[in-house]
Amino acid sequence: MPAINPNISVDCVIFGYDFKDLNVLLVERTLLSEKGDLIFTDHTLLGNHIYEEEDIDEAAMRILKELTGFENIFLEQFHTFAHPKRLENEKDRQWLRSIGFDPDNRVITVGYYSLLNCKEVTLHAGNRRVCWVPVNIVGDLAFDHNLILAKAYEDLKLKVMLGPIAYQFLPRKFTLSQLQKLYEVIFNIRFDKRNFRKKVARMKYLVPLNEKQKGVAHKPAQLYMFSREVFEMTKKGVFEFTI
Amino acid sequence: MPAINPNISVDCVIFGYDFKDLNVLLVERTLLSEKGDLIFTDHTLLGNHIYEEEDIDEAAMRILKELTGFENIFLEQFHTFAHPKRLENEKDRQWLRSIGFDPDNRVITVGYYSLLNCKEVTLHAGNRRVCWVPVNIVGDLAFDHNLILAKAYEDLKLKVMLGPIAYQFLPRKFTLSQLQKLYEVIFNIRFDKRNFRKKVARMKYLVPLNEKQKGVAHKPAQLYMFSREVFEMTKKGVFEFTI
Repeated sequence: MPAINPNISVDCVIFGYDFKDLNVLLVERTLLSEKGDLIFTDHTLLGNHIYEEEDIDEAAMRILKELTGFENIFLEQFHTFAHPKRLENEKDRQWLRSIGFDPDNRVITVGYYSLLNCKEVTLHAGNRRVCWVPVNIVGDLAFDHNLILAKAYEDLKLKVMLGPIAYQFLPRKFTLSQLQKLYEVIFNIRFDKRNFRKKVARMKYLVPLNEKQKGVAHKPAQLYMFSREVFEMTKKGVFEFTI
Repeated sequence: MPAINPNISVDCVIFGYDFKDLNVLLVERTLLSEKGDLIFTDHTLLGNHIYEEEDIDEAAMRILKELTGFENIFLEQFHTFAHPKRLENEKDRQWLRSIGFDPDNRVITVGYYSLLNCKEVTLHAGNRRVCWVPVNIVGDLAFDHNLILAKAYEDLKLKVMLGPIAYQFLPRKFTLSQLQKLYEVIFNIRFDKRNFRKKVARMKYLVPLNEKQKGVAHKPAQLYMFSREVFEMTKKGVFEFTI
């Protein structure tokens, strides 16, 4: 086992879309007494300390690879959290002691997020209990993980505005209704269907396929894909945005 | 003196605009031999270790306040750098030893940037020698500071596209030519003056003042200000951008 760096951790906010909600992957944390009685149970983000010889990007990729089996998953470093009192809650201190960490040791954590489609990924959580929870109903998380999640979500919205990263949430082939619903869920707004389709028609990198949905009860809809190649070739100058 | 945290530093990329170039503030670093002969001299960004009881935002603000005398300066945390070999260059190791730091001690640094108008700020550099250098001609910097600067500049361009932060580079009252030049310098592109003015005319938060330039040789131009209040009231929905 490589040596662990006691001062630096990474926390991965793994956003997962299931065609209905924007979810975040949470890990159950349980503290038992010496007799084995339950003291408390709650949830954390997926995170860990980094190894001494490891870069933080590598550490985040390692954690994601362990979970999903995939390498090269989209991963964005968004913020670092280092408040000197971030491990001060008594529950967190108890739990840290139980796993052999000194709660008085200062730990700063680097936040990353990743975007997955819940239906397309098989999770390998080992002996941890993990669950997808819609981001708007996660309760009190351990440590400063509510703050980390909030900041990740804020940054996600910015980055989705700036570039075509939301496609990470969808399967390779998707319908325009699925795309509209995804944006509605991320931004918590409603679009008028006709306006949305008009906007989409202008995006040359949204390519209609010679293929329709299969196995649906309603009239099967046209399938589309996102072409990164077309996007790169047709993207507009920076001045589409603001002055 | 509060205790210093040996593992965590902040580096501030201080961008300064002088109506001509986008500059970065560099600090001269000099290593002398025991006899007092010059071994080398080069430049670093402005940075320092944080104190044990201090948050990273606080540390960055402290460093900026020491430099400018101002509190509440615009400051953006943009990325954390933690490569295990980031202090491996022999010059950096020599220099760290000379100031009493162990170069084998792993240090991760959190990058912040700030935007100033060079003409409007008085620098209090203490016994350090500092200088403004145009970002496109900085040479080899110490440590991984070229990487930190490159990443800061990249993030700056994104954030300037997303919101009205570039005004931090200008005095409160400015001309449209000054504004155009600023954007041209940041993005290293040229705008057609008429198109730029047409775009500006649509920005209600760019408010023409009852005032013209003074003390210029040419015909004095109309002065404008940026109104954050108007910006907040008139900003468009997120869907102006991309799908």
